[in-house]
Amino acid sequence: MSAQKPRTVPGEVAWPGRRLEVAEPLRLDCGALLGPFTIAYQTYGTLNAERSNAILACHALTGDQFLAEPHPITGKPGWWASLAGPGKVLDTDRYFIICVNVLGGCMGTSGPKEINPATGEPWGLSFPVITIADIVRAQKLVIDHLGIETLFCVIGGSMGGMQVLQWAATYPERVFAAVPIACAARHSAQNIAFHEVGRQAIMADPDWCGGAYLTKGRRPARGLAVARMAAHITYLSERALHRKFGRNLQNRQAVTYGFDADFQVESYLRHQGIAFVDRFDANSYLYITRACDYFDLAAEHGGVLANAFRGTKTRFCCISFTSDWLYPTAENRAIVHALNAAAANVSFVEIETDKGHDAFLLDEPEFFATLRGFLGGCAERRGLAAR
Amino acid sequence: MSAQKPRTVPGEVAWPGRRLEVAEPLRLDCGALLGPFTIAYQTYGTLNAERSNAILACHALTGDQFLAEPHPITGKPGWWASLAGPGKVLDTDRYFIICVNVLGGCMGTSGPKEINPATGEPWGLSFPVITIADIVRAQKLVIDHLGIETLFCVIGGSMGGMQVLQWAATYPERVFAAVPIACAARHSAQNIAFHEVGRQAIMADPDWCGGAYLTKGRRPARGLAVARMAAHITYLSERALHRKFGRNLQNRQAVTYGFDADFQVESYLRHQGIAFVDRFDANSYLYITRACDYFDLAAEHGGVLANAFRGTKTRFCCISFTSDWLYPTAENRAIVHALNAAAANVSFVEIETDKGHDAFLLDEPEFFATLRGFLGGCAERRGLAAR
Repeated sequence: MSAQKPRTVPGEVAWPGRRLEVAEPLRLDCGALLGPFTIAYQTYGTLNAERSNAILACHALTGDQFLAEPHPITGKPGWWASLAGPGKVLDTDRYFIICVNVLGGCMGTSGPKEINPATGEPWGLSFPVITIADIVRAQKLVIDHLGIETLFCVIGGSMGGMQVLQWAATYPERVFAAVPIACAARHSAQNIAFHEVGRQAIMADPDWCGGAYLTKGRRPARGLAVARMAAHITYLSERALHRKFGRNLQNRQAVTYGFDADFQVESYLRHQGIAFVDRFDANSYLYITRACDYFDLAAEHGGVLANAFRGTKTRFCCISFTSDWLYPTAENRAIVHALNAAAANVSFVEIETDKGHDAFLLDEPEFFATLRGFLGGCAERRGLAAR
Repeated sequence: MSAQKPRTVPGEVAWPGRRLEVAEPLRLDCGALLGPFTIAYQTYGTLNAERSNAILACHALTGDQFLAEPHPITGKPGWWASLAGPGKVLDTDRYFIICVNVLGGCMGTSGPKEINPATGEPWGLSFPVITIADIVRAQKLVIDHLGIETLFCVIGGSMGGMQVLQWAATYPERVFAAVPIACAARHSAQNIAFHEVGRQAIMADPDWCGGAYLTKGRRPARGLAVARMAAHITYLSERALHRKFGRNLQNRQAVTYGFDADFQVESYLRHQGIAFVDRFDANSYLYITRACDYFDLAAEHGGVLANAFRGTKTRFCCISFTSDWLYPTAENRAIVHALNAAAANVSFVEIETDKGHDAFLLDEPEFFATLRGFLGGCAERRGLAAR
């Protein structure tokens, strides 16, 4: 992919990817001024001369900017590698894909793990609490920096979908098309509850040290692993868990009458927890889950979600998955209803799948076909040359 | 209630409730012989001369024998106080209600918290891992001890419902009527997964001390609280959480941009976690969740659930709740299908409610009416005098 990247521009460092160093402080929703700070991002494909083929792909809670290339820590394929690449749905021969590590993240963008330039110490809990709107403000700095006036498309699933909605609501004239996937216009009580369990698991770990573990050379790995395990269950449907694992035993003929991982599903969850702590920062997990919990787009618009989209010219395609119980179809449909009430251009597709919330990360033929069709139609309207 | 209790019989101590001291070792599913050991239980109402009016009510995961009287630790009403009492559905003027603290529990029955008579130390993880069948074996010792040949009814919700099914399968001739509520004939992968998260949260707490916290004067309170919080979400429906809490803030006008409990649902969950550790033993939580996970009644009968009930004369009433996603109607219906396949006498009622799994503990009029009708009909067949 590196050959397809634009040249490194001033203010960016080449490793471990692209970075934008922001000198001017950014006013956050909490009132704090953040700056100077860093935004890390990756791009795939080539920005055309008209700068009209840019797609901003927004990552989810524990995702990052390594969308279509191997992850620098785990070596695993990018989280949307099946969707993005030459000739794929997010066709890097046709589109210029941008993916920005969210503010508060832990893959290069300023967050609690990074050094506070004012103190020379890791931010820890002194990093300001951020919102989805703050995350989008930071992304916009990258888009401005790249000289892109209008994004061809903003797309994302889960927390990425919230960013899509925030973009469409805050900068409607800069978003030609928007694809919020498997998300909601506000975090429900159950969503908040699951996040709170994860945060409590982290904060209960003595190695969390009140958030100051980095300066003490410790890591709340056990708490973060438990948080990940609890969250991971919500990403899968009951049926998917049953299909994948059922009550199958893990490398044994009979239960052991003990507390080892007798069942495959236990072994799988433990692995998910352990693998996660190698690549993620516990405080980042606190900050990013909080940003999700605070998300309530209607509340920013007098309690009426449709007001977030009044007069929009953006073309929307909302996508949900039948077995997603974290952000169920009803939540996605509420977005569609609001867009309808704002007389927006919106299509809605509910994909039949038993894979649960995680379906937005998986190779789902109907999902891919829906995206391909919508993007193709929008590209035609936008005057982007067919491949 | 104490005036209605039968006299204390030899082998029992009066405080903190009724106890049966079992001298003869009990063979457990894991192969271990347990004994001598103690079974704590409570009774309500009076056993009639024919000993034909006894109802065994089986408690759920974190329940106990204090069904219809204030809890000795929390002072709160018994967990089925709304259902059981004079003139109530479980009418203590008519029936003799028995509730036994499960084996492995922490309210008087032998479990990891109690002293191992062989060592004089708390059992901790040296207590044998128990199963639902073991729990039922222990209950049967109480029933034998009370001289009850046939239980008029065995009833219970959630893990209590599993015990009902085990009773009906193992001792069919001793169960006149059976009411499994909001349960399943086997623990699903998702059920196991949630339990595993809870266990990992406990075992991740350094104060767990490899299970030996009691001998070290410590308690894994933080881990147990996180386990309870995660489990508690599964007891409520998304809609119930929304109705009770929505996105309401906790004693504040605006979010605080921090990690305090801004939302009521966070405050509620934290309270659930903290309150739980005052009354429950962490190792007991490990043992009892394990017993649930191991439960698979069909597996004990050649993989065919109907075989568990072949030739049964027991009258069954299966009850599920529409918004229960922990043991959804489909799981309860699978029990009914197996009973039908065994040509058993079975009725099935799905109660419309938005209260989720916890509905079996709540004052649900249709639930109460269903139970009253079923018990009344069975009592007539059984020749029990109407009140």
